[in-house]
Amino acid sequence: MKKFINHVDDYLAESLAGFAAAHGDLVVLNTDPVYIRRKRLKPGKVALVSGGGSGHEPLHSGFVGYGMLDAACPGQIFTSPTPDQMMAAAKAVDTGPGVLFIVKNYSGDLMNFEMASEMSEVQNAMVLINDDVAVENSSYTTGRRGVAGTLIVEKLVGSLAESGASLEQCKAFGDRINKHTATMGVAFTSCTVPAAGTRTFKIGDDEIEVGVGIHGEPGRRRARMAPADAIAGELLEAIIDDLKPGAGAELLVLVNGLGGTPLSELYLLFNSTRLWLQRRDLRIARAQVGSLTTSLEMAGASITLCTIDEEMARHWDSPVLTPSLRWGM
Amino acid sequence: MKKFINHVDDYLAESLAGFAAAHGDLVVLNTDPVYIRRKRLKPGKVALVSGGGSGHEPLHSGFVGYGMLDAACPGQIFTSPTPDQMMAAAKAVDTGPGVLFIVKNYSGDLMNFEMASEMSEVQNAMVLINDDVAVENSSYTTGRRGVAGTLIVEKLVGSLAESGASLEQCKAFGDRINKHTATMGVAFTSCTVPAAGTRTFKIGDDEIEVGVGIHGEPGRRRARMAPADAIAGELLEAIIDDLKPGAGAELLVLVNGLGGTPLSELYLLFNSTRLWLQRRDLRIARAQVGSLTTSLEMAGASITLCTIDEEMARHWDSPVLTPSLRWGM
Repeated sequence: MKKFINHVDDYLAESLAGFAAAHGDLVVLNTDPVYIRRKRLKPGKVALVSGGGSGHEPLHSGFVGYGMLDAACPGQIFTSPTPDQMMAAAKAVDTGPGVLFIVKNYSGDLMNFEMASEMSEVQNAMVLINDDVAVENSSYTTGRRGVAGTLIVEKLVGSLAESGASLEQCKAFGDRINKHTATMGVAFTSCTVPAAGTRTFKIGDDEIEVGVGIHGEPGRRRARMAPADAIAGELLEAIIDDLKPGAGAELLVLVNGLGGTPLSELYLLFNSTRLWLQRRDLRIARAQVGSLTTSLEMAGASITLCTIDEEMARHWDSPVLTPSLRWGM
Repeated sequence: MKKFINHVDDYLAESLAGFAAAHGDLVVLNTDPVYIRRKRLKPGKVALVSGGGSGHEPLHSGFVGYGMLDAACPGQIFTSPTPDQMMAAAKAVDTGPGVLFIVKNYSGDLMNFEMASEMSEVQNAMVLINDDVAVENSSYTTGRRGVAGTLIVEKLVGSLAESGASLEQCKAFGDRINKHTATMGVAFTSCTVPAAGTRTFKIGDDEIEVGVGIHGEPGRRRARMAPADAIAGELLEAIIDDLKPGAGAELLVLVNGLGGTPLSELYLLFNSTRLWLQRRDLRIARAQVGSLTTSLEMAGASITLCTIDEEMARHWDSPVLTPSLRWGM
């Protein structure tokens, strides 16, 4: 295992210390319990708190800042954070109108966020993200997994919260966006979790895992390597089959790298996606390409489509200032 | 070879088409000859044109936009662009006061940019970047290689150009920044150039290449895998030995991923870097962490230090709006 690491046990703490030092203008690291929060809170705003296992960076810590999250709770690699992290983060960032927990649908995350929700003194609600259309149940999940579409929910609800919306409105908007968002991914290689020291799964030199999860969970099928156009087509067929966009639908398209795939390939995959959608008269209203929800150094990518209306487009375009997403300010 | 690709010959064209479509608000792609230019030029401003072999994305195309480059000329993967690309790009973006070519020191790039410089009708000057302290001469280079420090030159000179400086001033500033910038990298794995289909170099499961170039060129030594602190220390010793920062020097620190290394490891490496510098009373004035000058999917990273004065800090902080770097607007 070749990684920039000193001791496996210190991986997360040292990485977070580096993150907080590099972005000291935007975020503050709390170490006991561990969470990242915005440096400057906005009094009277509904606070957004997310979190989950580490190893998916920049999700979620890289999205803490103006226009997105107020706090993120990182667990160990691919391991849920604990309720005490979530409760402490919620308490630290609530300024009165309550906290919205944004949770990816994994059994551990859900159980711990539900426990935090019940035990927290802070008024709160929860949005559960399950955008992955690949499989109905999975290794760590009852129901569909939450994957790259999460950042779209965090961006759009983050913007609504900045505009002064209530906790109820933020939750309803989050639930609505989740229903409009569908993702499917493909892996070329497995990642190696530091504490395990060996690859999560085996895959042949000419094989790909279609519908892979962001922890290396099995997808729909093990297939032979194929051209980018064919891979994009298979992912998009599954996504469209789930999302069923109406005629004239406007799409937010996210081509997301899983960590080990170069940006030039992601742009090529976006090009395949673009041409596929064009042939079906589906319009790309907004596009985002980058490694934003990763699986450590896994090579591969996911495609996310979100059918957006005017309100959602406006909240996508609104200013955001976080370590990993920033525009409009 | 598992990559998002349709045909090897179309890799660059399809990737650039995707890039231009994703960033149509900022850039325009010219296809014959191939270059990326800003969508909106600023009349009367010195234009900055860079370029080089592809495979290092987001360098250079991702840095075209307000506050950085006016145009980028991408060659095939790890292959210099041609003089006709450079001349066409220069002509397209010059609005009168001339063009500054920013060139990484590789024999092919230098020869072609010099040819373009001589043959161009546009008034021009050149800044040659050679920030890599690892080796004096290398596979494709007479003299030191130009690597990740290039983006610092592009950012700072880009800002000076926006402020209305002359071609002469921009060139002098670029030369000065290059002298203040030093980089060294380390590779854990080799990348695979699509047209070759096999890995550029062999490296054992417990080996690292210290001082690697961004095309996989040999560095100073092949070493055993080591803790992040030890790797950071070796790179920093070499950089500091070259840069010789005075007492009380202020540093811009860039921890750059080579493509296949997760962001969480880059932050950990930044943490090692930060603590090493702290122990030597060297102050980090600005920090940047990310995969910004890559070598396709190579796992590894480089550390760049740039000793900055007040003027340079101001130009680093100034607004920038490109596909891959954006702040302050």
